[in-house]
Amino acid sequence: LPVAVDAVGGDHAPHEIVAGAAEAAENHGIDVVLIGPPQAVGDTRGLELVGCTEVIDMHEEGARAVRRKKAASPVVGAELVRDGRACALVSAGNTGAAVAAALLRMGRIRGVSRPAIATPLPVPGATPTVLLDAGANPECQPQWLVQFAQMGAAYARARFGIAAPRVALLSNGEEATKGTATHRAAYDMLSGGEVGIRFVGNVEGGDLLSDAVDVAVTDGFTGNLVLKGLEGATAFVADAMIDAVSSAPEAQDAAPVLVPTLRALAEALDPETYGGAMLLGVNGVCIIGHGSSSARAIVNAVVVAREMVDAGLVDTLARSIHPNLRQ
Amino acid sequence: LPVAVDAVGGDHAPHEIVAGAAEAAENHGIDVVLIGPPQAVGDTRGLELVGCTEVIDMHEEGARAVRRKKAASPVVGAELVRDGRACALVSAGNTGAAVAAALLRMGRIRGVSRPAIATPLPVPGATPTVLLDAGANPECQPQWLVQFAQMGAAYARARFGIAAPRVALLSNGEEATKGTATHRAAYDMLSGGEVGIRFVGNVEGGDLLSDAVDVAVTDGFTGNLVLKGLEGATAFVADAMIDAVSSAPEAQDAAPVLVPTLRALAEALDPETYGGAMLLGVNGVCIIGHGSSSARAIVNAVVVAREMVDAGLVDTLARSIHPNLRQ
Repeated sequence: LPVAVDAVGGDHAPHEIVAGAAEAAENHGIDVVLIGPPQAVGDTRGLELVGCTEVIDMHEEGARAVRRKKAASPVVGAELVRDGRACALVSAGNTGAAVAAALLRMGRIRGVSRPAIATPLPVPGATPTVLLDAGANPECQPQWLVQFAQMGAAYARARFGIAAPRVALLSNGEEATKGTATHRAAYDMLSGGEVGIRFVGNVEGGDLLSDAVDVAVTDGFTGNLVLKGLEGATAFVADAMIDAVSSAPEAQDAAPVLVPTLRALAEALDPETYGGAMLLGVNGVCIIGHGSSSARAIVNAVVVAREMVDAGLVDTLARSIHPNLRQ
Repeated sequence: LPVAVDAVGGDHAPHEIVAGAAEAAENHGIDVVLIGPPQAVGDTRGLELVGCTEVIDMHEEGARAVRRKKAASPVVGAELVRDGRACALVSAGNTGAAVAAALLRMGRIRGVSRPAIATPLPVPGATPTVLLDAGANPECQPQWLVQFAQMGAAYARARFGIAAPRVALLSNGEEATKGTATHRAAYDMLSGGEVGIRFVGNVEGGDLLSDAVDVAVTDGFTGNLVLKGLEGATAFVADAMIDAVSSAPEAQDAAPVLVPTLRALAEALDPETYGGAMLLGVNGVCIIGHGSSSARAIVNAVVVAREMVDAGLVDTLARSIHPNLRQ
């Protein structure tokens, strides 16, 4: 089954999206199908196109757009997965629309209260930290956070081969008394030891880029703000330092070597390196790319989608929240 | 009146704290009084010491510690301000304890529901962004966020001379529909236009280090996590880049000049540059330094405390939330 790629979602759609999809097909031998209105997609570079008639803009209210535009690209893509015509959906378009389309068309894994967006944060020299929820659920109940912890651990295992991922709650201090009432209630459930994960307590915002933890759990409001803050700070500091090096007269001889080294380092720290976020908890593999996704990000997303399908991610997630299904 | 400095609060207390206080007195001509148990403080470097008998550890639950230890350094410091024996309190110790001591001993400004911690975030080439609440109130009511917006604007004006600060709510998207129910309710009140501030809507985590906004308002849970995340990411990327430059053979000739330049840049991006956070809403000037405060941070904190006393910050804050007192 092919990976379905939303060809008209993203700031650089369709050009970068189609280019990335074509590269994934050519260089990685992955079967890909594009989704979009034929006239909007244009040149498909030889890839199969499943036509649709509507497009959801980046600035539309996602859930509402999905209810109104039943022939929009993420909706049609999620239907392909539901109907067994595609193995996974990749969209770099409107995040709310992709979440709503996957939720309404693929449905939830049995027992999952809410799907969550899981984003790997690069930790140089170590496996990434999986942050969830990165934005699907601005307000969460404690039980949902517990499920995010279970699904996040299963994902870290499937995706990064971490045998017993260390799972923590993001909080405003390490002590169990810190956090909101919701987070403290989740803390109590997680530390009870009956949810099948290795809970290590609270971590703070400064621990995310370190090797202190493998899975960091929070609500989608906080998770989104922290993620965007980290992305912004990383890019900002890297750019400022590269500028300083490339404009220093003393560095004239070294700059041609140093600047590419620093750019490679900045790229390694960019969350895009991992091909986007995964929507965990829906009945299918669904990758949500950054709106600014380049062809490179789309290649990575398609490769990860294929890997997660082959690894049986959906079954693994189902088992993670059902103790009686656990192996 | 002298600035009271908690000599036994902070990871590097008392040495760095006393060194910073002494430097502020010598180089800036600011009257300073230390607070702490004489035997724990040791050499006061000629500064006056107000003795106390208890110390609050960094890991104690702050509010509880303040209730139990009535002779602890932040409590005695806050009493000096209340009793007109000091003009301001500076503490780099347990944040919760400093907040509780200031709240319980100085009291709140009339009409203020909750004090908030305001932290300036460096924005190179522009005035800083004031982030609040950075941790005093993990859970907030919408009305509190509105007061944070009013106090944050007054502070940005008093501290950084911004005539009409642009105030925004931190949210997981720019649209008014984004955020938690609490944030949306605050959004409605702020956009009503009757609270005396220039409200510009929502900003995202990635906007904080940019010149997009002057005051960013959120609850203390989210604010603390975003702040720690930014601090961590900034330091992490800066260190990685400095390492890369200093270890590259090609940079051998340039490194002695480049590395100090990059270090200076990293320092300019460090929130500590601004001398710590300000507790807004209590009846006195109270600066809460980072636990890791160095002598440099304490000097900055004492200088800022003195400036804010001279600028009449407390009266300015009182007027910001009382329309009938506004000038």
